[in-house]
Amino acid sequence: MAEAAIKKIGILTGGGDCPDLNAVIRAAVKTAIIQYGWKVIGIEDGFEGLLKEGKTRPLLYDYVKGLLSRGGTILGSSNRGNPFEYKFREGGKIVTEDRSSVLMDNLRSQEIDALVVIGGDGTLSIALRLSKMGVRVVGVPKTIDNDLAATDVTFGFDTAINTATEAIDKIRTTGESHHRVMIVEVMGRYTGWIALQAGIASGGDIILIPEIPFNMDKICEVINERIKSGRNATIIVVAEGAKPDGGDVSVRMVVEDSHDPIRLGGIGDMVAHEISLKTNLETRVTVLGHIQRGGIPSAFDRILATRLGVSAVDLLAAGGYGKMVCLHATHIEAVAIEDAVSQLKKIPPDGEVVKAAQSIGVSFGK
Amino acid sequence: MAEAAIKKIGILTGGGDCPDLNAVIRAAVKTAIIQYGWKVIGIEDGFEGLLKEGKTRPLLYDYVKGLLSRGGTILGSSNRGNPFEYKFREGGKIVTEDRSSVLMDNLRSQEIDALVVIGGDGTLSIALRLSKMGVRVVGVPKTIDNDLAATDVTFGFDTAINTATEAIDKIRTTGESHHRVMIVEVMGRYTGWIALQAGIASGGDIILIPEIPFNMDKICEVINERIKSGRNATIIVVAEGAKPDGGDVSVRMVVEDSHDPIRLGGIGDMVAHEISLKTNLETRVTVLGHIQRGGIPSAFDRILATRLGVSAVDLLAAGGYGKMVCLHATHIEAVAIEDAVSQLKKIPPDGEVVKAAQSIGVSFGK
Amino acid sequence: MAEAAIKKIGILTGGGDCPDLNAVIRAAVKTAIIQYGWKVIGIEDGFEGLLKEGKTRPLLYDYVKGLLSRGGTILGSSNRGNPFEYKFREGGKIVTEDRSSVLMDNLRSQEIDALVVIGGDGTLSIALRLSKMGVRVVGVPKTIDNDLAATDVTFGFDTAINTATEAIDKIRTTGESHHRVMIVEVMGRYTGWIALQAGIASGGDIILIPEIPFNMDKICEVINERIKSGRNATIIVVAEGAKPDGGDVSVRMVVEDSHDPIRLGGIGDMVAHEISLKTNLETRVTVLGHIQRGGIPSAFDRILATRLGVSAVDLLAAGGYGKMVCLHATHIEAVAIEDAVSQLKKIPPDGEVVKAAQSIGVSFGK
Amino acid sequence: MAEAAIKKIGILTGGGDCPDLNAVIRAAVKTAIIQYGWKVIGIEDGFEGLLKEGKTRPLLYDYVKGLLSRGGTILGSSNRGNPFEYKFREGGKIVTEDRSSVLMDNLRSQEIDALVVIGGDGTLSIALRLSKMGVRVVGVPKTIDNDLAATDVTFGFDTAINTATEAIDKIRTTGESHHRVMIVEVMGRYTGWIALQAGIASGGDIILIPEIPFNMDKICEVINERIKSGRNATIIVVAEGAKPDGGDVSVRMVVEDSHDPIRLGGIGDMVAHEISLKTNLETRVTVLGHIQRGGIPSAFDRILATRLGVSAVDLLAAGGYGKMVCLHATHIEAVAIEDAVSQLKKIPPDGEVVKAAQSIGVSFGK
Repeated sequence: MAEAAIKKIGILTGGGDCPDLNAVIRAAVKTAIIQYGWKVIGIEDGFEGLLKEGKTRPLLYDYVKGLLSRGGTILGSSNRGNPFEYKFREGGKIVTEDRSSVLMDNLRSQEIDALVVIGGDGTLSIALRLSKMGVRVVGVPKTIDNDLAATDVTFGFDTAINTATEAIDKIRTTGESHHRVMIVEVMGRYTGWIALQAGIASGGDIILIPEIPFNMDKICEVINERIKSGRNATIIVVAEGAKPDGGDVSVRMVVEDSHDPIRLGGIGDMVAHEISLKTNLETRVTVLGHIQRGGIPSAFDRILATRLGVSAVDLLAAGGYGKMVCLHATHIEAVAIEDAVSQLKKIPPDGEVVKAAQSIGVSFGK
Repeated sequence: MAEAAIKKIGILTGGGDCPDLNAVIRAAVKTAIIQYGWKVIGIEDGFEGLLKEGKTRPLLYDYVKGLLSRGGTILGSSNRGNPFEYKFREGGKIVTEDRSSVLMDNLRSQEIDALVVIGGDGTLSIALRLSKMGVRVVGVPKTIDNDLAATDVTFGFDTAINTATEAIDKIRTTGESHHRVMIVEVMGRYTGWIALQAGIASGGDIILIPEIPFNMDKICEVINERIKSGRNATIIVVAEGAKPDGGDVSVRMVVEDSHDPIRLGGIGDMVAHEISLKTNLETRVTVLGHIQRGGIPSAFDRILATRLGVSAVDLLAAGGYGKMVCLHATHIEAVAIEDAVSQLKKIPPDGEVVKAAQSIGVSFGK
Repeated sequence: MAEAAIKKIGILTGGGDCPDLNAVIRAAVKTAIIQYGWKVIGIEDGFEGLLKEGKTRPLLYDYVKGLLSRGGTILGSSNRGNPFEYKFREGGKIVTEDRSSVLMDNLRSQEIDALVVIGGDGTLSIALRLSKMGVRVVGVPKTIDNDLAATDVTFGFDTAINTATEAIDKIRTTGESHHRVMIVEVMGRYTGWIALQAGIASGGDIILIPEIPFNMDKICEVINERIKSGRNATIIVVAEGAKPDGGDVSVRMVVEDSHDPIRLGGIGDMVAHEISLKTNLETRVTVLGHIQRGGIPSAFDRILATRLGVSAVDLLAAGGYGKMVCLHATHIEAVAIEDAVSQLKKIPPDGEVVKAAQSIGVSFGK
Repeated sequence: MAEAAIKKIGILTGGGDCPDLNAVIRAAVKTAIIQYGWKVIGIEDGFEGLLKEGKTRPLLYDYVKGLLSRGGTILGSSNRGNPFEYKFREGGKIVTEDRSSVLMDNLRSQEIDALVVIGGDGTLSIALRLSKMGVRVVGVPKTIDNDLAATDVTFGFDTAINTATEAIDKIRTTGESHHRVMIVEVMGRYTGWIALQAGIASGGDIILIPEIPFNMDKICEVINERIKSGRNATIIVVAEGAKPDGGDVSVRMVVEDSHDPIRLGGIGDMVAHEISLKTNLETRVTVLGHIQRGGIPSAFDRILATRLGVSAVDLLAAGGYGKMVCLHATHIEAVAIEDAVSQLKKIPPDGEVVKAAQSIGVSFGK
């Protein structure tokens, strides 16, 4: 039996925020309305918006005006709300429950015929399970870390490296004025794309990434050689997931007289600490943190996000359920979510970009 | 007989300037010195620097410090100085002469073993002729317009569309406050890449490009429909080379009581003029002009320029004379200059990006 | 008899737009609601919104969220709509009529007890006349040109000079790469504040302002001296209202075969033309135009606009009718609109700032 | 006996770096050369450059080209090098010695007739002592914190608040997308100028400054009230020197298994910790740190720095030894260093700016 035609679709954003989520939403809404005459429902706070009442609202054409350059997501996002393993507090402890039937009921009662799901690995995995249960769903991959194998680049990444580059540009002059070692910690838990790209773009001297375990002695050697050549300042760009070659980081920070740690000292602090012990030089750490997720999106990201939003809706219209849109070279394509999720795109330690950096004198600390 | 090994190379930049020429120079100099132990000579003002005395200077390692984010070219550039058709004034008139032998003598006397030539079509064509005469030369393509078929994207383009997008963002709010039609003329004589990309990125309502001849009546119709829907402001992004479908632009501007025209009214003025005649709406034109060529380069451009500079020197070392470096998807590759020069990359009028723009309601004026 | 207490106020913006009009509106609305418990009515398109129906709407607290950094004015603006000399078309010609009684009726029927009027000379003059007729009104001065004698600096000016400075920074590198004379025309019809400040901030070599008539021969002499000292590029920053010392500009541009001129060549074109005739150097003109009115406001402007918006409402509450708020040194003060309107603040040609510029080698072309 | 005329001056920068130190140097060098025909010597790393050999160099006219927008200080800076209490290591321990006679000898031997000293309290105090010993010296006050009573505003401050504002703009969207409490820690050890101004400019909801001790319960109350009104995100801007009303901060962080603390958790961490304990809301802290000292200077700072640099040299020429230049309203003036040093400019807790912030709903946590 033929499926009923799509008349109304829902859109949601899941996981950590990232520049130009709103531009994807805008493009998808406009395309759905202009090209296909569909209605669009905005679902708030990720999948949680399909598990609770009062968390959906119509997205009209005029409502998405101005979203192209607005950071964050107007729909809200959440890392909670996995319908298959919904967590909640009951009697003081946390209980997990499968609430996918609530979600399915909600889709039916609101007459949402199909879903555009914008999110990272976790969110897309849920989309995949829903797809296997018969929900018409397409995905738009989102990760600020650019670590998804299925696509050349993810939207938001370009803005993030521009933000990080601009910040390192600012920090450089302080380092030069005071002959200091300036350490800048950027995002990238499993891969070092932001560190590598922002490091090259900002003229970083040492770049530390998860893909290339670093050696503290080598780092200090590089710094000392620089000083011998009259280069008194050194910029180290370090991904939060970078690790020393001898294994895991041993330094931990705790709060005295407190049950919970406030903030563990990150890898940037550890590197700074070791350098100051070994070289007697002044070091300063800056953790860029959340500024990398915000900001006015770059032109590249606005265009990419727009193309992805349009293509996701086109993909729904073409019946490409269970797929997600992605960028290859200059083309937007579609791949099965199943094949794409959890395929981490790592930096090849001997790839062309790493080698290019080494050719101009950048050290990776090994 | 085996060629003598390269010991010293020359670098020059030709044609109009563009963001991150200096980053290419920096990467090439560093790579030549660090990786290959070569000396590097900077040649001033394009090929003219090889035709006159005193226009070359050594580029030492420390000299390229800080160039990553500096606009323009430290070597200077020139559209004159074609050694095969050198133009000069003699007795009040302009004479053309083949001075390629002067250039060859200069290379020999300065012991420049090979050349890295950064430039556009004109400059690379000269490089090609020199290559055929036996000069060891590699090219790095440069065009702010992104209109070169051999490469996915040229360095400087990303910065240019960010600059244009930011400018249009600024102009939009004036349009909205005053219910005006704001026309923004951007670069792009033969192709509309800047107009298309900056137009999408800035939420332009109408985008006019050379690849899609426009119709004034259609444009006015779109504007009037917008006003009927309560959208009182319209943003038109027009490439300087855009043309009406009825043939060439007929309006010309001249200076009264003057022998020479100061500045001909461009296509932006013409479009504004026609709209104000046909709709009685207030129009305002902004010609972005030279700000598109300058500015602090984006992270993307800094990385691309760095990779191209490194690769050009690697290409020389590998004996890839007569070739130029380019970007395909995420890879740097080399193609024969002969195959690449003058192959204009036009926007497919029914390609995915144009269609994506149309899907979200953008009109191309036809 | 005591006046009735204020319960509801109206806000309007008049004249050309300028960065951070919205921040003034936001601060005034929040203060009126939080501090005084007043209702606020937004009046659209300047005074015209009080002459036509359906052009007012309540401004609720949540409605002004996000306005701090949004360019333009959410209320719209208009240069038309002078209630005392209202112009409209009747039978093919333009008729002028006093419609102030319509406005007064409208205030009464909508129970608007007082007005906050944000605007330039024209708008504030109307506010003054209304004040004399008994309307409780306070003003917030607005002029992108910073040419108001009553206040040290106007909001929007700081953003405008940042925008102009950034644009000239971009143009400079092109000039240096190509050994050109780059002319940048900025706003400033009667005074040269933007040209002077952006000229100094961007390292302009020659600054031309209305307050100091310039001499073309002197300008060419400066350029030639620069070339003799090895400075091949010259940046000229010219206010649109700058004039040569010999009287008015004689060059005019017209459109051939057209009844109306599209755009008269401005002073920048004229200066470029003369230089190229007299020096044979390449010149390029950029007219910054409307980008100076837009953009994300600077921190300074956001703070100033906020303080002015708060103070205007405080002034209403304190009964300071007929006055406007302004900045003196670090303090917000109030002056009578009557004393302030039309008092142009000119740059003293022998003042400290002009002298400081001359001390570092800037020429004013005389 | 009349003093010998000045023929050669020295310039130095001391203390922490700050945007547009270079612009002051540039203006002073140009003025000294153009206006007075003096020679200029650049002294490296603050006063230390007068205590060691080989740390001075001539500053020629062409050498200061391009410095207007370059961050940091080309002269280097240092917090060490107090000639009256010079600290050095001898036999494993730190010894203090008066080396002012070395400095005096150095001035004589290098024929430096007068000094322009750019620096903060510490640096200017040394300048004052030298002045009393007969050295012809003038000062230019520098503090990123804007906390100097003698001047309305210090150069670099405007750039710092723009940087902080832009960063908070970026963080806001993350907070809104995830319904979080975002805490941003900015500079300001003794005064809260950056927190206050950037807090207002970025629409911060709660601003915590040293001048107004805060109460954690009050802060949590404000957050809870916001949530009740549907405002799920709260932005807290906190100066590094802000303190709770109950006395000093008790939470400290230490490194386990380490002799030295790496980094003590700052006030931002402490506030976040308390909020998460008391409200169960998600909190995130960003410490802006060194990016506030760098960056491309704003137009305002470039102009102010230029005017100060020119005026400092004019002040030397006029014999105003022992004085420093400063800004009052729109005028540059000179005050005795003696009267100015160590006069901290605090924010009046009931001043107009704090009240304006309160009027639009900002809480100061008390």
